[in-house]
Amino acid sequence: MSRKKSGDLVRLGLIQMRVGADPRRNLAKAVERIRQGARKGAQIVCLQELFVSRYFPQSEDPKFFRLAEPIPGPTTDSLCRLARAEKIVLVASVFERRSPGIYHNTAVVIDADGSILGRYRKMHVPDDPCYYEKFYFTPGDLGFPTFKTRYGKIGVLVCWDQWFPEAARLISLSGAQIIFYPTAIGWLSGEPRGAARAQRCAWELIQRGHAVANGVYVAAANRVGREGKLNFWGSSFVVDPFGAIVAHANEDQEEILLARCDFKKIDETRQNWPFLRDRRIDAYGALTERFLD
Amino acid sequence: MSRKKSGDLVRLGLIQMRVGADPRRNLAKAVERIRQGARKGAQIVCLQELFVSRYFPQSEDPKFFRLAEPIPGPTTDSLCRLARAEKIVLVASVFERRSPGIYHNTAVVIDADGSILGRYRKMHVPDDPCYYEKFYFTPGDLGFPTFKTRYGKIGVLVCWDQWFPEAARLISLSGAQIIFYPTAIGWLSGEPRGAARAQRCAWELIQRGHAVANGVYVAAANRVGREGKLNFWGSSFVVDPFGAIVAHANEDQEEILLARCDFKKIDETRQNWPFLRDRRIDAYGALTERFLD
Repeated sequence: MSRKKSGDLVRLGLIQMRVGADPRRNLAKAVERIRQGARKGAQIVCLQELFVSRYFPQSEDPKFFRLAEPIPGPTTDSLCRLARAEKIVLVASVFERRSPGIYHNTAVVIDADGSILGRYRKMHVPDDPCYYEKFYFTPGDLGFPTFKTRYGKIGVLVCWDQWFPEAARLISLSGAQIIFYPTAIGWLSGEPRGAARAQRCAWELIQRGHAVANGVYVAAANRVGREGKLNFWGSSFVVDPFGAIVAHANEDQEEILLARCDFKKIDETRQNWPFLRDRRIDAYGALTERFLD
Repeated sequence: MSRKKSGDLVRLGLIQMRVGADPRRNLAKAVERIRQGARKGAQIVCLQELFVSRYFPQSEDPKFFRLAEPIPGPTTDSLCRLARAEKIVLVASVFERRSPGIYHNTAVVIDADGSILGRYRKMHVPDDPCYYEKFYFTPGDLGFPTFKTRYGKIGVLVCWDQWFPEAARLISLSGAQIIFYPTAIGWLSGEPRGAARAQRCAWELIQRGHAVANGVYVAAANRVGREGKLNFWGSSFVVDPFGAIVAHANEDQEEILLARCDFKKIDETRQNWPFLRDRRIDAYGALTERFLD
């Protein structure tokens, strides 16, 4: 399968997987899935949030800090070798140890030559029942960067960032053609089915809305399977710059979701729906306020 | 039917209508529909964009400026009397003559005592084939206000504003419980059916996304019927603070869409999904830039 850039087309692979107790086995599984995706033609492959371990923020326990690693570190070393061998771009979510007392929920972008292009540190950090991330992760301090990869200019936002239109806007204004969302979201056990469906529906809605507002591709890779009290809902997806679903994974099985993006669609969409032309940048200053009432 | 405020519940009415050539008859029809809505219990009634006339921005012709009127003016005088008589809040879209050479696409909020609470002047003004609004409407200069009505605190945004998450966010930060969108959007004749459906889908998606992002009710009142080259797609709707559809009108008939909002749901939703808590207001400054690439 050729990895060459073919004009404005790029093939994505999203790895939706279950995660077990052993980080080494999880990494090995991810590597194998990435290889499979590459064999099927994927040029940019995105892993789910914190794919190397179970979703430890279900509880607050300092012992989990030992799961963190530096960047570069063992996980990114493996992935850089893989990216170079397969000539693919990788988006990988890593529990980053930056210094004693400073840890981040970080996404690393690795280019198709195996080099680390840069990192994004999760800016919006949740704290909800079974998502006690504020205990572990220092809020990101790198803003909303984009990365010029061999196969396109991309941005990465992580899970809870999904709910913030500001983040998707800023990434888009920086020229991203695709926004990736490595994700770990699921239902709490015992939630009524109606409420559960409403959650997944809102999660999908708002991300499709980001695609529409900004005229960009959006690709969300979510984990799947039961871990402790959480039942991760999978449903990884890719949508085009007008919010239409290009590819959608199932909700309870592992899957390598493949999708083709055509960057010409970005320009076409924005010519027909020129929202970026009409933003009232003279009137948005108060967006940096907490509340205005 | 009692018009009394009953705790946190408020009943909405959206008037989705066809519009003819005679402004006086259109106004009379709107008045009659509002009365019907009030009889059915509506406490806040929203009219579609520029309901008094056909959608004249399909072409650029100075003769249409004579459709404009001051605020207060004949249309708002009629509606103020009606609001007082029926004890309802009205949201009405008016082609505002402000001074020679300055005209606005304005929404007026009339309280249940018949007084004008204030106005919103459309901030994002489109210019697309058959939507030549930049010729007629000076961009709004009143920012994104909210209005404390007898039945709740509301914001109004108009049509093209729908596509801008910044507008919905700013209105929400100012404490709106409901965002109303008086609208005039439709298909161009001859558009392929697939593209047409994709447009209405994106239009609905992004507004439901605003509800989710902000934890507010969103209510869109759209016109219906064929006018010149445009086939307005109706489909007025109300969604709750998590984006779920409360009420939805048909796409080709006139309708008075009734819906009940429970403001307790706003607090409940935001307690479970505390996005406003986690906004990175330290990192949003660049939202006032045109582009960052």
